[in-house]
Amino acid sequence: MSYISKLAVFEGSVEIGYNVVIEDNVIVGKNVKIGNNVVIKEGTKIGDNCVIFDGAVLGKEPWKSSTSATTKEATGLSPLKIGNNVVIGANSVVYKGALLEDFVFVGDLAVIRERVTVGIASVVGKGVTIENETTIGKYVKIETNAYITAFSVVEDYCFVAPEVTFTNDNFLGRTEERKKFFKGPILKKGSRIGANATLLPGIVVGEDALVAAGAVVTRDVPARKIVMGVPAKVVGDVPENQLLENQSYYREEE
Amino acid sequence: MSYISKLAVFEGSVEIGYNVVIEDNVIVGKNVKIGNNVVIKEGTKIGDNCVIFDGAVLGKEPWKSSTSATTKEATGLSPLKIGNNVVIGANSVVYKGALLEDFVFVGDLAVIRERVTVGIASVVGKGVTIENETTIGKYVKIETNAYITAFSVVEDYCFVAPEVTFTNDNFLGRTEERKKFFKGPILKKGSRIGANATLLPGIVVGEDALVAAGAVVTRDVPARKIVMGVPAKVVGDVPENQLLENQSYYREEE
Amino acid sequence: MSYISKLAVFEGSVEIGYNVVIEDNVIVGKNVKIGNNVVIKEGTKIGDNCVIFDGAVLGKEPWKSSTSATTKEATGLSPLKIGNNVVIGANSVVYKGALLEDFVFVGDLAVIRERVTVGIASVVGKGVTIENETTIGKYVKIETNAYITAFSVVEDYCFVAPEVTFTNDNFLGRTEERKKFFKGPILKKGSRIGANATLLPGIVVGEDALVAAGAVVTRDVPARKIVMGVPAKVVGDVPENQLLENQSYYREEE
Repeated sequence: MSYISKLAVFEGSVEIGYNVVIEDNVIVGKNVKIGNNVVIKEGTKIGDNCVIFDGAVLGKEPWKSSTSATTKEATGLSPLKIGNNVVIGANSVVYKGALLEDFVFVGDLAVIRERVTVGIASVVGKGVTIENETTIGKYVKIETNAYITAFSVVEDYCFVAPEVTFTNDNFLGRTEERKKFFKGPILKKGSRIGANATLLPGIVVGEDALVAAGAVVTRDVPARKIVMGVPAKVVGDVPENQLLENQSYYREEE
Repeated sequence: MSYISKLAVFEGSVEIGYNVVIEDNVIVGKNVKIGNNVVIKEGTKIGDNCVIFDGAVLGKEPWKSSTSATTKEATGLSPLKIGNNVVIGANSVVYKGALLEDFVFVGDLAVIRERVTVGIASVVGKGVTIENETTIGKYVKIETNAYITAFSVVEDYCFVAPEVTFTNDNFLGRTEERKKFFKGPILKKGSRIGANATLLPGIVVGEDALVAAGAVVTRDVPARKIVMGVPAKVVGDVPENQLLENQSYYREEE
Repeated sequence: MSYISKLAVFEGSVEIGYNVVIEDNVIVGKNVKIGNNVVIKEGTKIGDNCVIFDGAVLGKEPWKSSTSATTKEATGLSPLKIGNNVVIGANSVVYKGALLEDFVFVGDLAVIRERVTVGIASVVGKGVTIENETTIGKYVKIETNAYITAFSVVEDYCFVAPEVTFTNDNFLGRTEERKKFFKGPILKKGSRIGANATLLPGIVVGEDALVAAGAVVTRDVPARKIVMGVPAKVVGDVPENQLLENQSYYREEE
């Protein structure tokens, strides 16, 4: 049986499955579909034309483990905000304090943490994790099971292949000092990371650069270069026809 | 509270948990156990002696992201069909248009997409993703968190270790032209892929070949050879006693 | 609608969400929060001050696939036991026969199998899998999507970075003989495994040793050494200030 708070607001037509929980002050736009067993926590705002698949949990409150070094206190988080035309996959979990812009697509069984922004039309694949304090630009694709660590930046039009691993702690949990150095990778506009590659903490991947599948990236990657291997080395230039500026879907910033 | 359509058909005894949704024209065989919070979408057919664990979603309709290059329109998909003696793990998601043959075992939190066939007695491990347009043979094992990309072929008796990554796009999302070349790996009969290995697009792994753990496979692997390293190179022959024909569980095709 | 067995015992105040299933002889301590759509199977014991997030399944019965080589019969398993101050993430699955000690933190979408012990204050990250017959010590961190295979040992104060893969079968599913040799890695006290590294079966990582990100570890790692590469080789010593004995959070055994 569903529980729908009397303080939830529905701005237009909505289709709601069975055994759904919608808490106080949730705002749901027009023409939204909400699957079965979906949980929408207090204050979450969902735009028009969204589809929320079965078992998704929206607006989950963060909870700090007793030994966490990167999770801040949850106080003062804004409610989860989801734009228009967003799709959320089955059994996915999106936290309070996240912002998903219009046309974002989230696959099944993904997790998006607090203080994360995902830009327009970006795709967060099945099983992907985006940790807290991270910014994902627009038209980005992050594919299945990729791990985007806390304090990462992924700029517009980037591509992150399946099972890629980002890291943010060169000290692997040791020394108090390390807490000053936590830094996720920075993917500059249009850069691409191949399948199952590993990026060391704070690595900057230059504009339109390409990291080959399986590479372990231990230093910054120059713009428009291809790197490969363990550790990754420059092996050539990104071909002209693969540059972002030559893609039909690319639109220069106004 | 459960919702069970009056148009659903139960062919024999069935055990159904709490808060279950079973839609129109679902057909459930004899002696089936359905856990709590399970969702079974319209038209799904489940054979005899199946066990569906809590929170599983069966028959999910595919939904194309605004920028997807490999997901076709969902129109014309057959309902999900599940054979006899199949087990589906907790919180897993199996799509409309998939076919799971008899004795298939799906672990927890796995996803199997549309237009996928999984052959008799194959195992799809916990957290595994099998993307659309893919064929998995019989007696195959695909282990935890492995990623099987779209347009892949995995023949009978293959073994795919945990965290293995398949790829299908050498152009990482660039050029229109690439869409002609999408091609997943092809694993010939009895081939085995070691843990956390990465297979490049369209790679053919020969019959009974072995890819070592952590390898990045950039060219085809000859039958019965072992490859290793980044990039993977041939280092020897698969030992006689590990060949498929010498396994007690192997049965020659009639 | 929730189903709460009359044979379940609540020892103090409890907050229970919607559509929850609590089976016979479950024992719930004081001051526990149970989210929506949570399933707690027969006999599970939960300590005081625990938080169970939406969609979690606690006490799942193991189910052997028709071809499994490592899953034993489920008969004789003790019910799941969860200590005090434990947190279980959304849509996670914890099996019957597991033991989670006080202050354990389990992220979202994780799986912990039967006959697993997780020691005091250890963290099991989002999407992590801990297979059966495995022991995790105290103050251990296992990060997102890491795969801990069956028959592994992870001693106190170890760190396992995201997407790390443990293996236990050098024969990749071939020969009957292999069943005598199944052996997971052994991580000695305070050792650390970098992101996306792969550990071969039975590898011993010495006390306070460090495996670099992306390494493929094919032989034992000496105590306090750093190994790196594919295959991993010793490249130096763990810096003094990173040794476990020099960490403020480390407490000598009484």
